[in-house]
Amino acid sequence: MKKIIINFCPTGMVPTKELTKYVPISPQEIIEDTHRAFEMGITIAHLHAREASGVPTYKSAIYRDIFEGVRKHCPGLIICGSSSGRNFPEIEKRSELLELRPDMCSLTLSSLNFINQASINDPEIIIALAEKMKEKGVVPELECFNLGMINYGKYLIKKGILEGPFYWNLLFGNIAGFQASFAQIGVAMQEIPVNHMVSFAGLGDCQLQMNSLAISFGYGVRIGLEDNIWFDAKKTKKASNLDLLTRVHGLMEIHEAELFQSEDLGTLGFYNSFNQNLV
Amino acid sequence: MKKIIINFCPTGMVPTKELTKYVPISPQEIIEDTHRAFEMGITIAHLHAREASGVPTYKSAIYRDIFEGVRKHCPGLIICGSSSGRNFPEIEKRSELLELRPDMCSLTLSSLNFINQASINDPEIIIALAEKMKEKGVVPELECFNLGMINYGKYLIKKGILEGPFYWNLLFGNIAGFQASFAQIGVAMQEIPVNHMVSFAGLGDCQLQMNSLAISFGYGVRIGLEDNIWFDAKKTKKASNLDLLTRVHGLMEIHEAELFQSEDLGTLGFYNSFNQNLV
Repeated sequence: MKKIIINFCPTGMVPTKELTKYVPISPQEIIEDTHRAFEMGITIAHLHAREASGVPTYKSAIYRDIFEGVRKHCPGLIICGSSSGRNFPEIEKRSELLELRPDMCSLTLSSLNFINQASINDPEIIIALAEKMKEKGVVPELECFNLGMINYGKYLIKKGILEGPFYWNLLFGNIAGFQASFAQIGVAMQEIPVNHMVSFAGLGDCQLQMNSLAISFGYGVRIGLEDNIWFDAKKTKKASNLDLLTRVHGLMEIHEAELFQSEDLGTLGFYNSFNQNLV
Repeated sequence: MKKIIINFCPTGMVPTKELTKYVPISPQEIIEDTHRAFEMGITIAHLHAREASGVPTYKSAIYRDIFEGVRKHCPGLIICGSSSGRNFPEIEKRSELLELRPDMCSLTLSSLNFINQASINDPEIIIALAEKMKEKGVVPELECFNLGMINYGKYLIKKGILEGPFYWNLLFGNIAGFQASFAQIGVAMQEIPVNHMVSFAGLGDCQLQMNSLAISFGYGVRIGLEDNIWFDAKKTKKASNLDLLTRVHGLMEIHEAELFQSEDLGTLGFYNSFNQNLV
């Protein structure tokens, strides 16, 4: 029986209410979408905080509201915050939410470009974030947009800066990152050490492709409006987070796959270190 | 008969006289190394300017001295400058040398990390540099450290922002870039459009591997102290630029390969646009 990690990413940094009315922005909206997703079945909630105005924020006061609401309504769910520096590069800001000791936090393993913007992650910032996460017992979500980020992650593992459990999130389809081609996915997966956990994300058009490919091969999926706001290929219908998640569960049913839940971490020997912060 | 592009990179931004006495720093030293390399046989000189103190500079006054000396001593050699923003991010500084109309100039196609430093190339800076190069008749050297940079280059070609002739320089072995493995090289080469010119560079330990692989398959090589300061695998002997170039010519002789010279561009239909600035 395949057990699929579902990494739920309802908000992200880019979608606005103008782009799609379905994107949850306020803590209450994020908690509600995550709660409904939890009831349908997800493993991890990858959550970004926003100001009331809608702009991304690093502020732990807002993250606290979100995390507390999610913990209250979703017992056992793995909660992951974001250390993205796309809009606030300072280490103090990027690491502020670590004081809340979420179960996990994203760690992007190099600088990169998106279509209209660079996202800067200096080596010393990456290392400082990794060390702060270790200190706080927060498991890093190893975010990779290209092969070199996997290589740098392995370098940090070799140096002892990253310690297990290891969970990689490979994001395909960014304009300046690796693409959702069989060859590129294949060569990326060759680089991931055996027994590490992996999810696939597809940005924009290729989200469904990556969901499907991951489920059919038994890897994790990342699903939500953070990566894609459309339901259909022709872009005639905006998706809600629950629409997208329902489709993922439909694929899992076809493949006779089950949801990987936080208890399953115990069978991998990861339970103690992975979710020590779980309420 | 294979014709091999040799892209000679004697200086770069990193090697210092403390690291290796062989690195040419002053315009006079750079001109001398390039002249000797030209007499041995090279296609392109990829040149970085330094201040008298040794630190990298964007200043066109120093580039002018270098370019004039190289043009005088190396007729027909394709001269390539650097638009690197690693130490000076402003577009005005990065594009200052374009006023000198070198035949080519480097264009790195995304932000990335090196081992100790990020190198930021915002999308709008990349596009501004590409447009300035087009305006000045300077052919971009499309520098790629990962698959996503190739993808972004193809996106700029599709948008008409980059026009031919197309010369890609794939640099393998950076810690946060693609690595010198057959699989990664293979998947990278699948992404390069047919009939485009390509050179392979190997950073550090893998320079000789990449030279050898490129020559045996008929691709271009990038060779010089910019990428690697050692002659031997055990790192007991520092290399001079001429030591490294001599070894490349030895490999070419074994493979019965000839030097690709600027005149050969005519046979590809690229001559007029490629080296219109040649003295």
